[in-house]
Amino acid sequence: MCGIVGYIGPKNAQNILVEGLRKLEYRGYDSAGIAVIQQGKLAVERTKGPLAALEEKLVTHPLTGMIGMGHTRWATHGKPSDENSHPHMDAEHQFAVVHNGIIENYIELKEELLAKGYSFTSETDTEVIAQLLKDMYDGDLVSTVRKVIQRLEGAYALAITSEREPDKLVAVRLASPLIIGLGKEENFIASDIPAILEHTRDVYVLEDGEMAILTPDTVELSTLDGKTIQKEILHVTWDAVTAEKGGYEHFMLKEIHEQPKAIRDTLAGRIKEGLIDLTQDLSFTEADLKKFDRVHFIACGTAYHAGLIGKSVIERLVRIPVEVDVASEYRYRDPIITPSTLVVVVSQSGETADTLAALRAAKKAGAKTLGITNVVGSSVSREADEVLMTWAGPEIAVASTKAYTSQLVAIYLLGLYMARILGTRTEEVLKKSTEALIQLSEQVEGQLIEAKTDAIQSLAKEIAKHEDLFFIGRGLDYAVVMEGSLKLKEISYIHSEAYAAGELKHGTLALIEEGIPVIALATQHAVIEKTISNIIEVKARGAHVLGFGLEGDRELKKSVDRVITIPDTLPLFTPILSVIPLQLLAYYTSVARGINVDKPRNLAKSVTVE
Amino acid sequence: MCGIVGYIGPKNAQNILVEGLRKLEYRGYDSAGIAVIQQGKLAVERTKGPLAALEEKLVTHPLTGMIGMGHTRWATHGKPSDENSHPHMDAEHQFAVVHNGIIENYIELKEELLAKGYSFTSETDTEVIAQLLKDMYDGDLVSTVRKVIQRLEGAYALAITSEREPDKLVAVRLASPLIIGLGKEENFIASDIPAILEHTRDVYVLEDGEMAILTPDTVELSTLDGKTIQKEILHVTWDAVTAEKGGYEHFMLKEIHEQPKAIRDTLAGRIKEGLIDLTQDLSFTEADLKKFDRVHFIACGTAYHAGLIGKSVIERLVRIPVEVDVASEYRYRDPIITPSTLVVVVSQSGETADTLAALRAAKKAGAKTLGITNVVGSSVSREADEVLMTWAGPEIAVASTKAYTSQLVAIYLLGLYMARILGTRTEEVLKKSTEALIQLSEQVEGQLIEAKTDAIQSLAKEIAKHEDLFFIGRGLDYAVVMEGSLKLKEISYIHSEAYAAGELKHGTLALIEEGIPVIALATQHAVIEKTISNIIEVKARGAHVLGFGLEGDRELKKSVDRVITIPDTLPLFTPILSVIPLQLLAYYTSVARGINVDKPRNLAKSVTVE
Repeated sequence: MCGIVGYIGPKNAQNILVEGLRKLEYRGYDSAGIAVIQQGKLAVERTKGPLAALEEKLVTHPLTGMIGMGHTRWATHGKPSDENSHPHMDAEHQFAVVHNGIIENYIELKEELLAKGYSFTSETDTEVIAQLLKDMYDGDLVSTVRKVIQRLEGAYALAITSEREPDKLVAVRLASPLIIGLGKEENFIASDIPAILEHTRDVYVLEDGEMAILTPDTVELSTLDGKTIQKEILHVTWDAVTAEKGGYEHFMLKEIHEQPKAIRDTLAGRIKEGLIDLTQDLSFTEADLKKFDRVHFIACGTAYHAGLIGKSVIERLVRIPVEVDVASEYRYRDPIITPSTLVVVVSQSGETADTLAALRAAKKAGAKTLGITNVVGSSVSREADEVLMTWAGPEIAVASTKAYTSQLVAIYLLGLYMARILGTRTEEVLKKSTEALIQLSEQVEGQLIEAKTDAIQSLAKEIAKHEDLFFIGRGLDYAVVMEGSLKLKEISYIHSEAYAAGELKHGTLALIEEGIPVIALATQHAVIEKTISNIIEVKARGAHVLGFGLEGDRELKKSVDRVITIPDTLPLFTPILSVIPLQLLAYYTSVARGINVDKPRNLAKSVTVE
Repeated sequence: MCGIVGYIGPKNAQNILVEGLRKLEYRGYDSAGIAVIQQGKLAVERTKGPLAALEEKLVTHPLTGMIGMGHTRWATHGKPSDENSHPHMDAEHQFAVVHNGIIENYIELKEELLAKGYSFTSETDTEVIAQLLKDMYDGDLVSTVRKVIQRLEGAYALAITSEREPDKLVAVRLASPLIIGLGKEENFIASDIPAILEHTRDVYVLEDGEMAILTPDTVELSTLDGKTIQKEILHVTWDAVTAEKGGYEHFMLKEIHEQPKAIRDTLAGRIKEGLIDLTQDLSFTEADLKKFDRVHFIACGTAYHAGLIGKSVIERLVRIPVEVDVASEYRYRDPIITPSTLVVVVSQSGETADTLAALRAAKKAGAKTLGITNVVGSSVSREADEVLMTWAGPEIAVASTKAYTSQLVAIYLLGLYMARILGTRTEEVLKKSTEALIQLSEQVEGQLIEAKTDAIQSLAKEIAKHEDLFFIGRGLDYAVVMEGSLKLKEISYIHSEAYAAGELKHGTLALIEEGIPVIALATQHAVIEKTISNIIEVKARGAHVLGFGLEGDRELKKSVDRVITIPDTLPLFTPILSVIPLQLLAYYTSVARGINVDKPRNLAKSVTVE
């Protein structure tokens, strides 16, 4: 989720680039930089830290020139640092690249270039592209870019310039968004509309596999292999605030819709020959893994709910006992930790104070630690012995959505990888699981179509009238309704509570009265019937039951008042699909109640106090 | 909690005894019997099952006579069976005894009698008394009773008759309640007022260490060593319903007040030379215990909350990792069970369907199982490999109180006993802990005095006006507020929810608004400061905070709106003391809201369906 901006025209590029980057600040960043062709030579300023740090540098070292590119970074490969900031150049400073996304085969390419004698100054995958451009330059930038792209695997958007041909900018899109802004005697590149909105409202939206060659007066569109294409100009009518949210009314809704991509990105580069391969991420050996006789998942809030799924995943796939702890409780309960304990901490920001404190306590007590986090360079990513990144991109809304599903993906990856190394599952089963994992992002997409979201919006309007409700589920469904309930609480202020469906009758059933909504999730084949018995119990006391069940399930339908269906997958993976309608339900209920969805009262995005 | 009734007078005893037993039915029973002196000979009818089963027997085998005793049994020593039913007699059927309570040294006495050639027909401790009477009979029943009593250790109430002296009944009280009803040319013995209320309202209430000798016309009161005493006659003004509740407005309040006794009874006979000794209860050897590498606690509702305390107790005292599961979830989550797993199930009734199913699944999977239950002869007590009884007596109110505190006592006993055998605590520490354990019942008593309960009643009146509230706590306090919250939910229908204090800020804080009550429990020295930080967080959002903290704590007082104090004990034992005011709070809130405290809507006492 880096931000890209590019300019070519008659004006001084520096200010346009910096202003453009400022409009992309909501995407989050840890460093920023610009490259300008200054008197025929590439000149770059870049620095770790907020945009203000770059601006400060530019006060004493201004860049002058009418062609340039800027970048705000959200670290993926390599921690936030000056060296890892974009733009990246080849060793001779002739080609500059800004990049959003991931080059999956960069290690291979880097080794190849190192063997040829190239040296690298950063840990990024991006630098490889700049060096390749230099290495493969054939006298024509556009033709060279096409050749280089053939060598790259991954999902990315690029902007490229070179002092060898200081009259153009090249833009390439493969799976990461990129638009071209069309001005008067000037043209723009941007990863997102807000960056250019004050200059033009006419844009080309590049599709995957398309590239653009910009001069001040022309924009040439083509496929990656050089076929010219025609494209309609899109006239943007959004205001600046809407533009930030990619046209969605709220960041939360935008982020819900970003989940297919977040899932894909988190899987990217981690599947080889149909099997999970985390050798690029983790340094665990088979001997290390065999040593573990227990696993602790530690997290807070939504990430804790991901940890609950983690317990099922690890216990079922590799039969090592797992405990899941709320981080603020873990430290003080004098947990039993040995060198054979694997402690997995989960934190989107990687800065959650309670989680960090628990991580440190576990390390001190001799555990092996593994961090699952969304922010490269965060405390968790620095302090854990092993790190498994989620690639959800920055999450702005306080109520977490894409971070949660990405955490689940990371947990599935970990579980399947452990099962592979420990041999607790056959290759056939692992391959089948991996296939199902790959399908998830499309299945999530299928749940986000209008017909589906409309149905949930109509449920939400009913829910919004109530002040109390209950969620019920069994097994993995219980873990998911805990998350669904928290989501609803956070942004609708309805007092909702999640219960293990079988436990309701041991007390809380007293609260069920005429008309109270009960949301029942029943996706786990093995316990659907049992859950239905519990649904009948609450219906008998007058509850209005909204059922969330699998497509094709007939039994649930009969026993509930309304039903929403969820696509089928392996039972272990269902949480990724079943949480989607619950996120949407929370979202639309919040909207119906007129609440500030993205910033609910009393809450902060990243809780850095205990 | 057996029921005793006795009659001596001009009428036919049988019907008076059976009617009296019927009035004691609310005390629960598993068998019943009567003994009558019929034409100079002791005649007994008794049977396992409800009172109706005894009545059926009496239709075909009526007993005729004007002196007799009856008994409904709530099994302690020996399962419910015809043989274990009272009255018990010596081998020659000359002396009959009915008994409520426990004879702690009965095994010793039984061995002595066996050595002398006596044979026994039951597994009860009571039969020992009858045989001793025969063995020690000196020609005078009263003098013999006094001698026998000197041999008995324990807490009990007795009624005794003998065909050798068919003109009297003898009643003895030591720690179990007993009253004498004074009629016209007739007198009565009863364990509780309702049994005799239709015959007389004039009673003597025996105190510990007192006995009574009844003839139709006289009642002689004396101490156990023979000193005559005078006593005021109490004139009972209760109606029949109030009488059943021992003068309390509800069974729940009665049971809350019975906790000191339930705690004492559960400890009784399990402490030897200042150390916990469960050799009479459990057959575990040191080798057995050393084998366990993990413990699972499984239960539902309130008993699940006791299991949460169990995790801390076992992990801290013996450092074996513990998992706690809701029974309805356990079975279906494919738990990792090996022969080294000790599975502890907790169920008051011993018939909770989910718990029982989990017990069976665990056994089948090869675990060693231990049941903690309140009902001898219940399914859990029969099916678990090992049984640790709680001696709370029958619990009538749906909302569990004394069963919970007794379960905690059983868990402490188990933890300390394991620590002793495994040598994970020094004898000095164990003795100190045992002393603290013994003190608990008195400390609970101290919390039930009027000044204390009045303060809570006044809090309850405030609480009763709200529809939502939150409980917070950390560590053991968190486990206790989960129980406090469930109690309040069950009987007040207020939507209350318990949170780990540090977890509130990860979402649920959004529900805190002006005036909402937050009940904070802070008794754990190590985390009081952290809990206070969380209290300040909710107060800043307008919450009205009711603090429950230790006597002498100054910090908590400063940060809350009102404070209730709890006596200090070892941190591990605090839950027994801290739950008391929360039980009272739930009770008085329910009363203030005009709810049927003992039978809240939708709930059953013992949940025998899944």
